[in-house]
Amino acid sequence: MAKEIVNREENYSLWYNNLVTKADLAENSAVRGCMVIKPYGYAIWEKMQAQLDKMFKETGHVNAYFPLFIPKSFLSKEAEHVEGFAKECAVVTHHRLMANPDGPGVVVDPDAKLEEELVVRPTSETIIWNTYRNWIKSYRDLPILINQWANVVRWEMRTRLFLRTTEFLWQEGHTAHSTKQEAIEETEKMVNVYATFAREFMAMPVIVGRKTESERFAGALDTLCIEALMQDGKALQAGTSHFLGQNFAKAFDVQFANKEGTLDYVWASSWGVSTRLMGALVMAHSDNNGLVLPPKLAPIHVVMVPIFKTDEEHSRVIEKMELLKSRLEKLNITVKIDDRDNLRSGFKFAEWELKGVPVRVAMGPRDLENGTLEIARRDNLTKESREFEGTENHICSLLDQIQDNIYTKALKFREENTINIDDYETFKQKIEEGGFLMCHWDGTAETEAKIKEETKATIRCIPLEGPSPEDGKCIYSGKPSVGRVIFARAY
Amino acid sequence: MAKEIVNREENYSLWYNNLVTKADLAENSAVRGCMVIKPYGYAIWEKMQAQLDKMFKETGHVNAYFPLFIPKSFLSKEAEHVEGFAKECAVVTHHRLMANPDGPGVVVDPDAKLEEELVVRPTSETIIWNTYRNWIKSYRDLPILINQWANVVRWEMRTRLFLRTTEFLWQEGHTAHSTKQEAIEETEKMVNVYATFAREFMAMPVIVGRKTESERFAGALDTLCIEALMQDGKALQAGTSHFLGQNFAKAFDVQFANKEGTLDYVWASSWGVSTRLMGALVMAHSDNNGLVLPPKLAPIHVVMVPIFKTDEEHSRVIEKMELLKSRLEKLNITVKIDDRDNLRSGFKFAEWELKGVPVRVAMGPRDLENGTLEIARRDNLTKESREFEGTENHICSLLDQIQDNIYTKALKFREENTINIDDYETFKQKIEEGGFLMCHWDGTAETEAKIKEETKATIRCIPLEGPSPEDGKCIYSGKPSVGRVIFARAY
Repeated sequence: MAKEIVNREENYSLWYNNLVTKADLAENSAVRGCMVIKPYGYAIWEKMQAQLDKMFKETGHVNAYFPLFIPKSFLSKEAEHVEGFAKECAVVTHHRLMANPDGPGVVVDPDAKLEEELVVRPTSETIIWNTYRNWIKSYRDLPILINQWANVVRWEMRTRLFLRTTEFLWQEGHTAHSTKQEAIEETEKMVNVYATFAREFMAMPVIVGRKTESERFAGALDTLCIEALMQDGKALQAGTSHFLGQNFAKAFDVQFANKEGTLDYVWASSWGVSTRLMGALVMAHSDNNGLVLPPKLAPIHVVMVPIFKTDEEHSRVIEKMELLKSRLEKLNITVKIDDRDNLRSGFKFAEWELKGVPVRVAMGPRDLENGTLEIARRDNLTKESREFEGTENHICSLLDQIQDNIYTKALKFREENTINIDDYETFKQKIEEGGFLMCHWDGTAETEAKIKEETKATIRCIPLEGPSPEDGKCIYSGKPSVGRVIFARAY
Repeated sequence: MAKEIVNREENYSLWYNNLVTKADLAENSAVRGCMVIKPYGYAIWEKMQAQLDKMFKETGHVNAYFPLFIPKSFLSKEAEHVEGFAKECAVVTHHRLMANPDGPGVVVDPDAKLEEELVVRPTSETIIWNTYRNWIKSYRDLPILINQWANVVRWEMRTRLFLRTTEFLWQEGHTAHSTKQEAIEETEKMVNVYATFAREFMAMPVIVGRKTESERFAGALDTLCIEALMQDGKALQAGTSHFLGQNFAKAFDVQFANKEGTLDYVWASSWGVSTRLMGALVMAHSDNNGLVLPPKLAPIHVVMVPIFKTDEEHSRVIEKMELLKSRLEKLNITVKIDDRDNLRSGFKFAEWELKGVPVRVAMGPRDLENGTLEIARRDNLTKESREFEGTENHICSLLDQIQDNIYTKALKFREENTINIDDYETFKQKIEEGGFLMCHWDGTAETEAKIKEETKATIRCIPLEGPSPEDGKCIYSGKPSVGRVIFARAY
């Protein structure tokens, strides 16, 4: 089973695709660029959703649902927004099919053309701000702190499972505030929620930073982000939080009476993470044996594989396993006993390694004699034999250790691959090796564009954390700079 | 506040719309037939989802996600299916907009026409069975027990919030089995899950039955359903579960090797409930003061309204309320203290009645003196004064009583409005009054169609429960019948 995965060192891209498909996370569908998220992959996404939803609610947000379709004219109302999204829209033009008059099958009914075309939402700022206009009259109606779990469609030309798909699942927060300050604070609060989620649940270190103007969301005044480093040295943007200023309020004429009774435009933020996080999770931790899932997001924490020759041994091993399972379940640990009768245990071991189950328990006749069992860790592939009694508590703390270890390992990798670069020649060399290159930049879009053109590296972000900024000279232009930014090639 | 709602007796349809919009459940959007589900409405839907999802998982199902888009040609593969859905499809024909060469705004880019049009899923049998073909080789791959939470689009000409909208949210189960018997059992199991959910959580009595051939799902061999009676005497189909036979397996060539090693087509079921349940919930229980929510689905169980004149009284009342709130929260009861300073308590009372919060607690200076509080029930609008101490346990059992009472009341209403009718003249009279009319029917589609044409009544279902079938004569044709079926006008 595991043999079917190409080595990460050999072909990273194929290794990723092998993992996603062979570990049953997702696969390509019959519809170009759209994926099928399979049950095992969806179970991980459900865990992500549940945790994020909890964190959103703890920070005062509520969920709602807005239409899938956006009237074409809405998109045009915010100039930069339409510029950013018009080129990749699925457009609904008709509302009926009819029997093909010239043969079998169905064709679009020309009489069912829509008066105004509808765009399948690529993001929902426009339809939501058009709705908020009717909800907001006074400062007493603010803030509005709404999140939506939804599917969105962006017609991508080059797609990759989870990382870039035509349709993807995501959440989009859309908040409305009476002051600029409050909207900025919301933007910052939510990027920090994402950072906490990435670190504590995905076990994935991220850097919180600010996007440069050219990398901003279409329609935003400021875009904050979390950036992670994948094992091939490429960066991955894992979440963004936008301060939208009054752009959408002005485009959709959303004004409120403030405490003084005068009218003002409403301030906005929007923020989102998507099923792209699934791709980040896979690429951040997995190895040549398969997925490595952090326990906090693993659909199965412990898999048990019985070893036996006779029916009598089988039933005695299973009995012990059921006992341990019930003890673990009391500790909120999810257990699967793999009792399939048509597969050898070696095959099962490989399959559950591929699927990234954090802990594997094996037990055979000798274990029954000795009152022992074998515990294998997925993260570092170590095994140990232990006494059966008390194992549930051991596994419970082992899961915490594994969660920590996966994070620590990823953090170490990032630290080893984050380097200060002070001249452009070294930059051009090092960018080939990947990693976060911390460089001085003169703050101009021209320099940024030139470097991108020459090296395919982009400014991932201007970090908001880490060492305090130091003055320096731009690696490209030599002009003065007020602090290092992160350059990398990115997904 | 409550005054803005028209009386149910005066205009039932407007009353319903008033409730849905004024209680902040949902509203119409800028997109024809698509609704915005507002936070309070969405919170109820989330409770429904959570409970249904739990019940699906307890019956062995897992969630997955399939594409929003369906290639046009897929729809045609199952003859009845395309007949049922082709006329109400949103069709994506292009994948790009461009700047309007003749003026402002954007237009569809004619160069971005799709080779094959995509239909926004009206239901997912076709795309899912096309996927299952690759997943199923042998009986060991079966059963597949998958559910999907998704949005779907059916281009309805006449829409009503929740009851019939162009886009709606739903879940759709799609299962694959190696035997006919197993698929039939699954179909029955899931309609019973729906019945349990409706009765125990929505406090809504339903009848489990079988649809006649003309009311079946397009592509099904058998459709089971739950039917509920609304307060205006109209029926509402609240959930369906379909036995699909081998229709989709044949249309998409999904075969498996059985234990004997021979190839056979796979057997299928599909089943779904949607945001239509929200409409059913509103119409089943609400009154002229607003919503009446069963506690098990209420986003807020208890609302507390402080009564006070001075700041000192205010802070003492709030302190007591916070104490009770914390005690209630330990019992998993959701509490809101309505401390808005710009509204009178009478206004608040009316607003929370409108929103259907099951229990209201009021407390004022005299209550502080006496160690009491006032408890009002939303379901029967009764009030009582009680001692503060121990109230949390009282409220806890009160919520159970309210849940039961709402169900009992709805059941009584249905029983009073379910009558046996044995002649067509009486039928034509009684159908004007509404209710479930239990009648003999000769089993032919012709009779069914005639009755529908003449009276707008349809056969809601052939009940699978209730009194054992008795022979009789069809009310329309006088031909022999083997049991009564339920006629009603329906949403």
